[in-house]
Amino acid sequence: MNSEKVEIFDTTLRDGEQVPGCKLNTEQKLAIAEKLDELGVDIIEAGFPISSPGDFHSVSEISKLVKNSKVCGLTRANQKDIEVAAEALKFAKRPRIHTGIGTSDSHIKYKFNSNREDIIERAVQAVKYAKSFVEDVEFYAEDAGRTANDYLARVCEEAIKAGATVLNIPDTTGYCLPEEYGEKIKYLKENVKGIEKAVLSCHCHNDLGLATANSISGVINGARQIECTINGLGERAGNTALEEVVMILKQHKKLKLYTEVNSKMLNDMSVLVSDLMGMPVQPNKAIVGANAFAHSSGIHQDGVIKNRETYEIIDPVEVGVNASTIVLTARSGRSALAYRFKNIGFEVTKNELDFLYQEFLKMADRKKEIDNNDLTAIIERITRKIG
Amino acid sequence: MNSEKVEIFDTTLRDGEQVPGCKLNTEQKLAIAEKLDELGVDIIEAGFPISSPGDFHSVSEISKLVKNSKVCGLTRANQKDIEVAAEALKFAKRPRIHTGIGTSDSHIKYKFNSNREDIIERAVQAVKYAKSFVEDVEFYAEDAGRTANDYLARVCEEAIKAGATVLNIPDTTGYCLPEEYGEKIKYLKENVKGIEKAVLSCHCHNDLGLATANSISGVINGARQIECTINGLGERAGNTALEEVVMILKQHKKLKLYTEVNSKMLNDMSVLVSDLMGMPVQPNKAIVGANAFAHSSGIHQDGVIKNRETYEIIDPVEVGVNASTIVLTARSGRSALAYRFKNIGFEVTKNELDFLYQEFLKMADRKKEIDNNDLTAIIERITRKIG
Repeated sequence: MNSEKVEIFDTTLRDGEQVPGCKLNTEQKLAIAEKLDELGVDIIEAGFPISSPGDFHSVSEISKLVKNSKVCGLTRANQKDIEVAAEALKFAKRPRIHTGIGTSDSHIKYKFNSNREDIIERAVQAVKYAKSFVEDVEFYAEDAGRTANDYLARVCEEAIKAGATVLNIPDTTGYCLPEEYGEKIKYLKENVKGIEKAVLSCHCHNDLGLATANSISGVINGARQIECTINGLGERAGNTALEEVVMILKQHKKLKLYTEVNSKMLNDMSVLVSDLMGMPVQPNKAIVGANAFAHSSGIHQDGVIKNRETYEIIDPVEVGVNASTIVLTARSGRSALAYRFKNIGFEVTKNELDFLYQEFLKMADRKKEIDNNDLTAIIERITRKIG
Repeated sequence: MNSEKVEIFDTTLRDGEQVPGCKLNTEQKLAIAEKLDELGVDIIEAGFPISSPGDFHSVSEISKLVKNSKVCGLTRANQKDIEVAAEALKFAKRPRIHTGIGTSDSHIKYKFNSNREDIIERAVQAVKYAKSFVEDVEFYAEDAGRTANDYLARVCEEAIKAGATVLNIPDTTGYCLPEEYGEKIKYLKENVKGIEKAVLSCHCHNDLGLATANSISGVINGARQIECTINGLGERAGNTALEEVVMILKQHKKLKLYTEVNSKMLNDMSVLVSDLMGMPVQPNKAIVGANAFAHSSGIHQDGVIKNRETYEIIDPVEVGVNASTIVLTARSGRSALAYRFKNIGFEVTKNELDFLYQEFLKMADRKKEIDNNDLTAIIERITRKIG
């Protein structure tokens, strides 16, 4: 089969936690980190140690706790940030420092008031300094999505020479189309000298709703790490949703890529993060939304009852959901109604069903959802009428 | 420029409304239809008239109300459905009947217990019958995403001969990857005789988080209609989000495709639908989420303050949001703090800022968000200390 592994780099506790309203205390972060470790993510980005004393403490405690995943801390390209991150990570079994700098012309000019050569120099110094503390150094070229490919390739080349083990290519503004992002990764894979010594990583934002597609396009074109968050949390419209990329690679076997995430924990993981951060997951969220496996239209319900595979490609059990739901509404058809009557103990004939269905529709036009109590009420009312 | 138009087919009131908990009464549907008409969508799918008396009534009332958009009703491939839809649409200025049948082997076998030739015959009869009532007939090949391309091309060819003006190619189960979906559209564009007489339409579901990317891949490869819903509502994980595809085509001018949707109404439209359906939009939803334009990390805030374009590609005004928000949290940096102090009337020196920033971080480690009252409290406390 020759399937290749894609590493999952979870940044729920860093890019996710920096979102308005998502702040967690250390205890909460530890609960999430422990579960991420169990979920099987390869890297946990635990925080940005220099950003606040609380964050430093959390990264340090997470480093002590995590058993299998690598633990990563974010820094900017300066000595102080890197020293503080190294200190916060000192108890980690497998520490990683994530350092980097903006490389797009917009970032170089407006953010750093600098020039391309100086940025390369700063990048090299940062990677070398991080390397003096830990073996595993990831370099990010911020706003790579809007960085010219030839310059980006030079930055990557120098970062690898300085010792970077992973090159993070962020589409910081969420602007790229999947084809463009894939081409960028392909360009780097083909034009960066020494690229075989480093892993290319996708870090996509969802401003246009394309983070997941861009990440998949990235790994199809040679990246072997995806940076993502539970429920797609993160700055603005968020990051790539971990649960989506994991399930895409699992469902599309012909891509010959796999992750080591235990998909059966995805639903629980989603609930834990949503609860602790107080960030609701919309019902129509892919994979982990409350409705992700609910069928309500008559046509769909009929199909699912005849054969689950007609409308569902993912067995809900695969993501830790117990059963797909048949919800009765005014859009439901006769077969769904008969199925639900059967479930609560009433086998109805075709003629009875025609009659019951009319009663059901009248009730469903008034009420959003019809539950088992309503069905029993319909049966009782009709029995009384007939009786 | 030679930009080509992509028609926007909104199915919030059909594919969106059939979702558990999303049922609307006629008055609510009329409010949404009126606003969709104003928003500039090309087609409003108003409902599935045969599914219930309430739905029939709504389609009929919407037909009377809508001024510019085409109004569409869904049917299965049978005479009764089509007659009822035609009746419900009789007051529409520009009526469209949307009829069709499942074409994948899974649907043909399990749902219809039929065979490929019979399905083509049913499709042709349905289109011809619909055509006897209205000029504009859209044909859907349900589960086209899992239908073999050569057979799908034959179905499309026969539907066009029978009079179909639009061919809907649904990825019913949300299984396709963008590349695959685009290739399918390209195949049809190149292999269906008479394809120049019909518009190919993308109808994608979001089960793997790829609906938007698949639709964009579809129009890049020759489709000229996208079926979508406000907030991406719809069966299970929902449909393509209207606001996302509209903004992608608007931002990526080099695709040479445009829509006639007034993007400045997108935010209001999203709020209206979310409120009436009682379906929350998650804060990290692209384009219309509460956080879509909020910056919280220090690095990002600093960049946005220096130049908005550093981190934002969409001007929030373009989608009807008044200003991007700088939210202060423990992840915010000195420049965001100085900016906010300035906004509330305190110009602080660099030395003062260092001191204030430490006080701010202590408070921010305890509290999720720091608002203007908190900032005033910090200033007052310090003034007291110094005084």
